[in-house]
Amino acid sequence: MKIDILTIFPRMFKGPFSESLISRASRKKILKVDTVDIRSFSRDKHRKVDDRPFGGGVGMVIKPEPLYCAMRSVGVRKRNNSYKKNNIYRKPYVVYMSPQGKTLDNEIVKNLAKFGHLVVICGHYEGIDERIMNYVDEEISIGDYVLTGGEIPAMVLTDAVVRMLPGVVKERGSIKNDSFYDGLLDYPHYTRPAVFKGHRVPTVLLSGNHKKIDEWCTKEAYKRTKERRPDLLRK
Amino acid sequence: MKIDILTIFPRMFKGPFSESLISRASRKKILKVDTVDIRSFSRDKHRKVDDRPFGGGVGMVIKPEPLYCAMRSVGVRKRNNSYKKNNIYRKPYVVYMSPQGKTLDNEIVKNLAKFGHLVVICGHYEGIDERIMNYVDEEISIGDYVLTGGEIPAMVLTDAVVRMLPGVVKERGSIKNDSFYDGLLDYPHYTRPAVFKGHRVPTVLLSGNHKKIDEWCTKEAYKRTKERRPDLLRK
Repeated sequence: MKIDILTIFPRMFKGPFSESLISRASRKKILKVDTVDIRSFSRDKHRKVDDRPFGGGVGMVIKPEPLYCAMRSVGVRKRNNSYKKNNIYRKPYVVYMSPQGKTLDNEIVKNLAKFGHLVVICGHYEGIDERIMNYVDEEISIGDYVLTGGEIPAMVLTDAVVRMLPGVVKERGSIKNDSFYDGLLDYPHYTRPAVFKGHRVPTVLLSGNHKKIDEWCTKEAYKRTKERRPDLLRK
Repeated sequence: MKIDILTIFPRMFKGPFSESLISRASRKKILKVDTVDIRSFSRDKHRKVDDRPFGGGVGMVIKPEPLYCAMRSVGVRKRNNSYKKNNIYRKPYVVYMSPQGKTLDNEIVKNLAKFGHLVVICGHYEGIDERIMNYVDEEISIGDYVLTGGEIPAMVLTDAVVRMLPGVVKERGSIKNDSFYDGLLDYPHYTRPAVFKGHRVPTVLLSGNHKKIDEWCTKEAYKRTKERRPDLLRK
């Protein structure tokens, strides 16, 4: 999979993408992730990419031209709804990270993992000029809170999607055990020592009885989901 | 505000915390954010911090001791529910980033912004030993998807909280305009040129009639919220 991230803060991605899972996927050639600096497509001598909003109001808006040129540079053409309808994923699929988008969940992640080429736009300031939406396939929010820009959300998206690619997570079983994979939260985990600061590991986990242990895990996952996220059970 | 982030991947934070808003808040001395490497509290000669889960199963679990020692090093003692009940915020408030937690939203962000000292624990692998929860004040999830670790979620939390601190965002008005601040999504934004690739800016925004422009903005915010996130209107 190829992921191009369009941003005015390319240096933000340095740490997150050179450590942990994303770097492992890159070394294994499963993933090629690049950042594209939107500023380098500004025709302004100060490399300015934002301007005041029409109609007044506070804040700045990312101008359409430099962003459009950055999108063209990674192969984006017109929006093509046929992506979603058949299996042709040759053209890049364009995602805009924004609080106005659909809320990201595991289903969206699994769907994005099917594409061969994702282009991820990071907004900043008050957002991007709305007319860019003519070239965007999907607007995605990572949750109901506001961040400075789309950079950290793009890292969230990349990490979640890359985790789904075959060959990235060593033990595929661990994805199936994940929270949300089957609509439940994960059960509690314990490791050595058996007694820590007076707190004991639940006895069943030390029993060696795998049937009982499985039952305990399922029961705890349900219990926790019911207590904390009854909305997940209703789904 | 002081934020201590406990992680086994401290280098992941380098880019995100040295650019943009978080770095501005640090320079202004509004924020002091540090990463603490959990590995440096391991008594193992290989600096190992994880072990196999009790009861079997795939994946590894973060051991309780090194994490506990890292927490002690930044001033964490016993959990103290009184934080939430009165205005004494002198002790650190401990947050664990995990998909099993409460889902982060703007209300949680505003509440966290009141504390003087946050300690943020990043899990990794299958998670941390459950007994650490005896020292955790709040378990927070950034959304219904799974990531490799708590590092990117800790960046999300930090960015969202820091944005709320007085003096960080230059124009306070821009926070009030944000999505979710008043339970609505933001309206569309436009900047120059007035015509881009044949797409015109809505005429009202060029009218100079501020009353009409305000009405348009409110109408668009409602329309968009109704179309995309009717759940927000129901709240």
